[in-house]
Amino acid sequence: MPLVVVGSVALDTVETPSERRDDLLGGSGAYFAYSASYFSAVKLVSVVGEDWPDEHTRLLQSRNIDTAGMQIVPGAKTFRWSGKYVRNMNDRETVDVQLNVMNQFSPVLSEEYRRCRFLFLANDPPRLQREVLRQCPGTTLTMADTMDLWINNERDELDELLKEIDGLVLNDSEAILLTGDANLVRAGHRVREMGPRFVVIKKGEHGAMFFSQHETYVLPAYPTADVVDPTGAGDSFAGGMMGYLAEQGNFEPTTLKKAMAYGTLAASFTVEDFSLDRLRKIERQDLDRRMDEYQRMLSF
Amino acid sequence: MPLVVVGSVALDTVETPSERRDDLLGGSGAYFAYSASYFSAVKLVSVVGEDWPDEHTRLLQSRNIDTAGMQIVPGAKTFRWSGKYVRNMNDRETVDVQLNVMNQFSPVLSEEYRRCRFLFLANDPPRLQREVLRQCPGTTLTMADTMDLWINNERDELDELLKEIDGLVLNDSEAILLTGDANLVRAGHRVREMGPRFVVIKKGEHGAMFFSQHETYVLPAYPTADVVDPTGAGDSFAGGMMGYLAEQGNFEPTTLKKAMAYGTLAASFTVEDFSLDRLRKIERQDLDRRMDEYQRMLSF
Repeated sequence: MPLVVVGSVALDTVETPSERRDDLLGGSGAYFAYSASYFSAVKLVSVVGEDWPDEHTRLLQSRNIDTAGMQIVPGAKTFRWSGKYVRNMNDRETVDVQLNVMNQFSPVLSEEYRRCRFLFLANDPPRLQREVLRQCPGTTLTMADTMDLWINNERDELDELLKEIDGLVLNDSEAILLTGDANLVRAGHRVREMGPRFVVIKKGEHGAMFFSQHETYVLPAYPTADVVDPTGAGDSFAGGMMGYLAEQGNFEPTTLKKAMAYGTLAASFTVEDFSLDRLRKIERQDLDRRMDEYQRMLSF
Repeated sequence: MPLVVVGSVALDTVETPSERRDDLLGGSGAYFAYSASYFSAVKLVSVVGEDWPDEHTRLLQSRNIDTAGMQIVPGAKTFRWSGKYVRNMNDRETVDVQLNVMNQFSPVLSEEYRRCRFLFLANDPPRLQREVLRQCPGTTLTMADTMDLWINNERDELDELLKEIDGLVLNDSEAILLTGDANLVRAGHRVREMGPRFVVIKKGEHGAMFFSQHETYVLPAYPTADVVDPTGAGDSFAGGMMGYLAEQGNFEPTTLKKAMAYGTLAASFTVEDFSLDRLRKIERQDLDRRMDEYQRMLSF
C-alpha cells in the first residue's frame, strides 16, 4: 500500500572525525522516503527553496518516490542543517540550523495523498503534524517522530498528538525527557500510556525497543565496523520499518517485529556512508541478505 | 565439568537513588560463583578477613559451591567496596575501596583445583591472574575479566595475560580504553588480535557483543523494568556464561552463543534486587523459562 511521509528535505553539512562534506542531500523526510521505497510506493510531502539541486529530486524519483508533494518555493532557500560528530560517532553537536523555507512549511495534501492509508509524520512541530493528520482522517496506520525541542516547548500540542497517532518513534534521551523516567522499559510503557498503541525507542548503536500493551522487546543494532556518518539513521530506521508495514498492509505483532528488524537493517546501511550514498548502491535483495544474517545472529 | 573461579569476595555498601544498604555480600568471585552454580559445580578461590559473616559462606555452600579455597585470614579485614548509582543506574561512582585482606591475596590452589579444566580469572591484577594460570597448565578453557586500572597501570602484564587465555570479558569503556578505538565492533576484534580466541564486550543495559575469528554478534539485554541494583551484573553474566560452557564441556560456536544468552539472563535476575537476593530465590528452571521468553523475543 502506498505510504505518505511528511517531513523535511535539507542540505546538510556533516563533519566526522575524518572528513567534512557540504551540501549533502538530507532531511528526515528524504531519509525516510528513500529507505521506505525498498518496500512500498512512497509519496513525499516537503518543501525546498530554489537552490535545491534538481539532481537530488531525480535521485528520489529514481526509486519511484512520488515527489509531486515536494513544493519548490521561488526566492526561498532550502532548510540547512550542519552537524559535527565527535570521537565515538554517537555524540552529535548541531553546529548550525537555518530553517529557511521550513519556516513557512504548512503542507496541504492533494486529494490522492489524503486517501493514503499509511502516514508518517516525520519530526516537525506537533501543531503541524496535527494539521496534516486532520487532512487524512481515514488512515489505517499513522506513525510520528518527535524531538526534545517539542517536548520542551510544545508539550500541550505533543500531548494531543500522542492521543491521535498509532505509533511513536523517538530516541532514548527523548523518552527519558518525556517521562522523567531513566529506565527505558518503564519509559517506553509510560509513553505508550500517553496515547499511542505502540512506541519504539531508538537507541542508536544499541538498537531499538518496542512497546505495546502486550509486548516489550529489544532488537540490537546490526554490528557495523565502518560507521562513516550516522546522520539519518533514525529516519532510515523509521522508513524501513513503516515501508515494510505498508508493504504487508497490516501491523500485526509478527509484522511489527519483522518491520523493526528491517528498520534496523536499513539504518545499518545508511550509516556506512554519507547521505544516501550507501543506500543508493543497494537493492531490496541486499536488505534481505542482511536480514538472513541478522536472523542467524539472533538464533541459538 | 567443575569450574574454578579465582576472585574477590567482599562486603559492599551500595547506594541507589531510593535506598542504601550496608555490608552486603559482594565481590566478583561471589557473583560469578553463585551465577555459575546453576549450571555446573563451582570451586571458589578467594580470601576474607575474620569479620566475614559465616552466613555468607553458608549461602554460597547452599548452592553446592565448594568454598574450601576461601581462605580466612585471622586478624585481617575483608575487602570492602562502596558505590553509589545515580539517576539512570548506569553511571556508578566508587565511593570507597578498602582492599584490606585482598592486599595479600596470593592464591595457591590445591592439587584438586589445579586439575580443573574450566578456569575463570575474575578481575584481579593481571600479575596475580597469570600466577594462578601457571598453577593450572592443563585447562581446556580459561577466561578472564579485567578493568581500567590494569589497562592503565599494568599494561605489560595484561598484554602477556591476553596471549595466555582463551576468552576475555570486559566492559565497553574498557575495550575502548584498551584499543583506542571507539567503534565497539572494531575494538572487539582488536582486543581479539591481542591474543584471546574470543572476546566478549559487556554493554550493561545494552547487552553484550561477541567476537571470534569468524563470528561477530550482539545480544541485547533482557528488558528489565525493575533495576534495583546493577552491582555484580557483569560478574553474574560471566558466571552464567562460563557455567553453561562448563556444563556443556565444550566451547563450540553454538554452545558459546547459548552461553552468552544464559549469561545475559543470569545478569537480568541479579539486577532485580541487591546483592544475591534475587538469585537466591530462583532455580535453574527460572533461567530456562526466561530463556524461552528471550528466544521468542528474538524470533521474527
